[in-house]
Amino acid sequence: MKIAQIAPMVERVPPKKYGGTERVVHALTEELVRNGHDVTLFASGDSITSAKLESVFPRNLRDARVKDPYGVNFWTLLNFGLAYDMQDDFDIIHDHNAPISLPAANLATTPTVVTMHGAFNAENRKLFQTLSSPHIVTISEAQSYAVPNLNHAGTVYNGLAMDEYPFSESEPEDYLLFVGRISMEKGTHLAIEAAQQLDKRLIIAAKVDKQDLAYFKEYVEPALSERIVWIGEVEEEERNQLMSKALCFLHPVTWREPFGLALIEAMACGCPVVAFNKGSIPEIIKNGDTGYVVEDVEGMIEAIQNISAIDRRECRTHALTNFSAKKMAEGYEQVYKDVLGV
Amino acid sequence: MKIAQIAPMVERVPPKKYGGTERVVHALTEELVRNGHDVTLFASGDSITSAKLESVFPRNLRDARVKDPYGVNFWTLLNFGLAYDMQDDFDIIHDHNAPISLPAANLATTPTVVTMHGAFNAENRKLFQTLSSPHIVTISEAQSYAVPNLNHAGTVYNGLAMDEYPFSESEPEDYLLFVGRISMEKGTHLAIEAAQQLDKRLIIAAKVDKQDLAYFKEYVEPALSERIVWIGEVEEEERNQLMSKALCFLHPVTWREPFGLALIEAMACGCPVVAFNKGSIPEIIKNGDTGYVVEDVEGMIEAIQNISAIDRRECRTHALTNFSAKKMAEGYEQVYKDVLGV
Repeated sequence: MKIAQIAPMVERVPPKKYGGTERVVHALTEELVRNGHDVTLFASGDSITSAKLESVFPRNLRDARVKDPYGVNFWTLLNFGLAYDMQDDFDIIHDHNAPISLPAANLATTPTVVTMHGAFNAENRKLFQTLSSPHIVTISEAQSYAVPNLNHAGTVYNGLAMDEYPFSESEPEDYLLFVGRISMEKGTHLAIEAAQQLDKRLIIAAKVDKQDLAYFKEYVEPALSERIVWIGEVEEEERNQLMSKALCFLHPVTWREPFGLALIEAMACGCPVVAFNKGSIPEIIKNGDTGYVVEDVEGMIEAIQNISAIDRRECRTHALTNFSAKKMAEGYEQVYKDVLGV
Repeated sequence: MKIAQIAPMVERVPPKKYGGTERVVHALTEELVRNGHDVTLFASGDSITSAKLESVFPRNLRDARVKDPYGVNFWTLLNFGLAYDMQDDFDIIHDHNAPISLPAANLATTPTVVTMHGAFNAENRKLFQTLSSPHIVTISEAQSYAVPNLNHAGTVYNGLAMDEYPFSESEPEDYLLFVGRISMEKGTHLAIEAAQQLDKRLIIAAKVDKQDLAYFKEYVEPALSERIVWIGEVEEEERNQLMSKALCFLHPVTWREPFGLALIEAMACGCPVVAFNKGSIPEIIKNGDTGYVVEDVEGMIEAIQNISAIDRRECRTHALTNFSAKKMAEGYEQVYKDVLGV
C-alpha cells in the first residue's frame, strides 16, 4: 500500500524527550515499512525514519522555538496541507494532526484515517460529528464513548517497540517514579502526597511547560527535598533505566486520559503501574496483575504497600503482548483494509 | 450565483467596533444580495445580514471570550469546515479565513476564491505558493508584489457603504485623530509626537489588545494629557462623527499594511488623511488631493500644516468613487466570473 503518515511538527519523529504522538507515529511508520508498505512520512526535517521523509521545515518546531508550535503556525498548516495536496500519490492517508487538519481531511478524495490523539470534549466533539468524512480511530475504547455518531473506524491501542525497552530480573530499587509533564491534570501533587505519607523516595522525571509554571511553583517546588527529587526532563534511555529499576510507576491523572503511553513503557520495563481509574486506564493496566487501578491517594498508598505482589515479568509480558508496535501496525493495517474495502 | 461567504468568527458581521475583515464581508454580502445573488454567510450567530446565515456558534468569539479567538479554536475550524463540507450547494466559495483555512480551500472541488486580508510574509508566502488551487484576491497591488507565483485572481480594493458615512460642509474642528488599535505597527507614538510638536489636540479612539499593553504603558500612557486624549474604543457612529469633524486623520503605520480600511472611512467623512508611505498607502490616498503620503514624522508635521489645501469634498468623492461597496462587489463579481469561466 502507498501510505502517507502525517505527523505533528512539534517534536522530531521520534522525539528526543517528551512527545507521545511523534513516538507512536515513529513506531507505526517503522513497522509499516518493515511490512513492505510504501510509506511517506510528513514530519519535521530532523526526523529519523525508514520511510520517505517529506518535510517543509528542517527542524522540529519546539527546538526551532517557533511561536505557538501547538497552534496555528505556517509550518503545521503547510505540513498537512502538502500531504493532502499530494493525495493522489497515496492509497491511504493517515493523519495524526486532528482537530486542526479536520476541515482538510473532510474534503480528501483519497481515503483518510484520522487518529484522535487528544481528548474529546464538548467543543471538538461537534467538529468530529459535523466533518465526518474521515475515518476516525480512537486510541482507547473509553475515548470513543464520549462521541455518539462518530465515523468510528475502530480502536487501535498505541504501541511501541516494546522489546527494545530494558528489563532486569534483579530486585527493584526503593523509589517511586513519576514521568512526563508536571501539571494539575497529570496529578504530580498527588504522587508527592502518596510518597510523603509513605515516607518513600519519589523521583520526578518530568518537564514543566510555561502554562504549568504556576502549578509547579505552588504544588511541586515547595515539596522538593532529599526524598522528593525533581530531575527535569530526561532523555529516553535514562528514563527507561529509571523505569526498569523503580519500585512502581505512579500515574494519578485527574482527567480522562485517552491513553497512557508512559504506562505501557513502564510495564515494558517490568515496572508495575499504580494509576487512577480515569478514561483508558483500566484498558491498559491488568488490575492486580500488572499494577493497580485505584480511586484516590488512599488507594494509591495501599497499592504501593502491596506492590511486591505484582510479578514484574508479567508486566513486561502484558506490554509486549498487547502494546507492541507490531500489534498496533496490524490494527492499523486492518483499518486501512476496512476503509479501502479490500 | 449561489455564493458562500466565509467570514471569520472573531467579530460579529458587521462588527460593533473594531474588525476590518468582518466589516468588509458585511458590505460585500449586502451588495451581492442586492444584486440578486443567492448568498449564504458563514459567520457568528449574532451577525446581521440579508443573506442566509449559517452559524455554528451563537455569538462572536470576542464577546464570548473564547480562548485564542484568532488561533486554533473549534468554532473557527467548524465555521469554515462546515462551509467546505457544504461545497456542493454553491457555485462559488469566497473564503476570508486564510491562511488557517488554506489546506481545506486547496482541496475544494467547488471553485474557491480566497481574499488575503493579512500581510504576506516569508513564512505564509510559501503556504500560498504550495497550496495553490484557490484563486487568491489581494486587497492592494502592493500586497501582491511580495509573492511571486501566487495564483492571483486580481486585486479588489476593500469597499464599504460609503454614502452612509456622515459628511458636513462646515469647518472642521481643531483636532487630529488617530483611530483603530494602539500598537507599535500602527505607530500611535508617532502620531503623538507630531501632535506634541505642533501643540495640537490629538484624539486617540483606539483599543488596546493584551499583546500591546506593554507598548501602551511605555509609549502612550505617559504622553496622555489635556491635549493628547485617549477615549478608548468607540462605536462606529461616534467614530464616524469624530472623523467628519477632525482636522485630519493620522496614520503613521510602521509596517507594509495590505490595506488601510480606516483611511477610506475617514475620506468618506471628508477627513483628509496623512499617512506614511508604506505598502498600500499610495494606492488609497490621492497625494496632495485627499491627503498626504509622507515618509516620516517631519513629513507628517509639514503635511498637517498644509492640510487646509485639501478639499474635504474631494476626499469624499474619491472614497465614494473608488472604495464603495458597490465597486468592490463589481470587482468580486468579475473575479467570480473569471474563475467560473462564464
